Amino acid sequence: MVGLDADDTLWHNEPLFTSRRGQFCALLSRYEPKGIPEDVLYSVEMRNLRHFGYGVKGFVLSMIETAIEMTGGRVESQDVQQIIGWGRDMLSTPIQLLDGVADAIESLARDHRLVLVTKGDLLDQETKLARSGLGALFQAIEIVSDKTPDVYRRVLARHDVTPDRFVMVGNSLRSDILPVVQVGAHAVYVPYEMSWIHERVPDEALANAKFHEIPHIRELPSLLERL
Amino acid sequence: MVGLDADDTLWHNEPLFTSRRGQFCALLSRYEPKGIPEDVLYSVEMRNLRHFGYGVKGFVLSMIETAIEMTGGRVESQDVQQIIGWGRDMLSTPIQLLDGVADAIESLARDHRLVLVTKGDLLDQETKLARSGLGALFQAIEIVSDKTPDVYRRVLARHDVTPDRFVMVGNSLRSDILPVVQVGAHAVYVPYEMSWIHERVPDEALANAKFHEIPHIRELPSLLERL
Repeated sequence: MVGLDADDTLWHNEPLFTSRRGQFCALLSRYEPKGIPEDVLYSVEMRNLRHFGYGVKGFVLSMIETAIEMTGGRVESQDVQQIIGWGRDMLSTPIQLLDGVADAIESLARDHRLVLVTKGDLLDQETKLARSGLGALFQAIEIVSDKTPDVYRRVLARHDVTPDRFVMVGNSLRSDILPVVQVGAHAVYVPYEMSWIHERVPDEALANAKFHEIPHIRELPSLLERL
Repeated sequence: MVGLDADDTLWHNEPLFTSRRGQFCALLSRYEPKGIPEDVLYSVEMRNLRHFGYGVKGFVLSMIETAIEMTGGRVESQDVQQIIGWGRDMLSTPIQLLDGVADAIESLARDHRLVLVTKGDLLDQETKLARSGLGALFQAIEIVSDKTPDVYRRVLARHDVTPDRFVMVGNSLRSDILPVVQVGAHAVYVPYEMSWIHERVPDEALANAKFHEIPHIRELPSLLERL
């Protein structure tokens, strides 16, 4: 069974957030001409993570809170409305598959059971998969609130697969690789051009982890044949 | 296999929303002394449903939008912050089980596979089940973005259960009963003291639907024995 991460593994996602972060800072510069430090929004997102989880809606709520806090309450309601509008746009924006994904997934689906394993908002991830056109190639979708070793163990148990028969593929060392290595399954790291700070891991954490790395998902089918 | 709805079937939920709706109207009365019609918030919620889905985060975003629209942008940011704070409170408030639920679920778990089938935010529903103390009695949790006949068909297929061996229990005719009857499975309606307008169905829709109704979940174990 092959588990595939979705955001920034199958389709572009982080650029959507990055560009909204940029627009958000630009919007606040009307109130704070010196600009706001980029890490303020991040710290609000982290503070809210256990309440709001991953995904667009929590991101929007964190932007609104940051705007209110950083402007000392001076942010105008039309700007709050603008931020909510960005959220709606993010949730309905067309899916842009990464180069080579469609071919790679079609090829994999011929020989393996494919399962999408992704964090984020349930409705959002479901509609993204539907809009991606890849839905029919996946035998299951596992939308999870976090990607911990326990969560992977539950996914494997549910599909009746032993760790040695499972390989997880994704762009996040923290979420797709390390917890999978910890449960004794295979992992293939396909780096994306950018990553959210939260998904980065210190080098020490990788020291003893055994996993595969390929520069492009195009190489996945041939790697799996060799495994 | 027994499917159980969560909100207002196992634990109280709608009162949390109803009381926040009341507080929300009270908050806006500072701007609009004549008050705002209750159905304005509802119509914004419905407008946002396909973007934000069911759950607390979408509810909060809809309250903020309604506040901005109904006050013509005069709503102050401290009130927006208050609304976000309500959301965080709703997401961390202690779970209040309905009377008799713990006994009924423990009794059912001895003879049946129990699956929680619920809409709403993934993280929120997972943490509610964990906080409820009932988690260990359920063999699976199915958090779904909507409860349609197709969604129930997929749940049954995933658990390898035929419709005649499945009974769904819940307080919503629209979500827990009618779609289940449509796929040919059994359904048990346990009305709750109040229901969200969105979950109501016209009498005509019920005319030919065959399902069971019990006044209290306490009666569920003996009903299932008779089935």
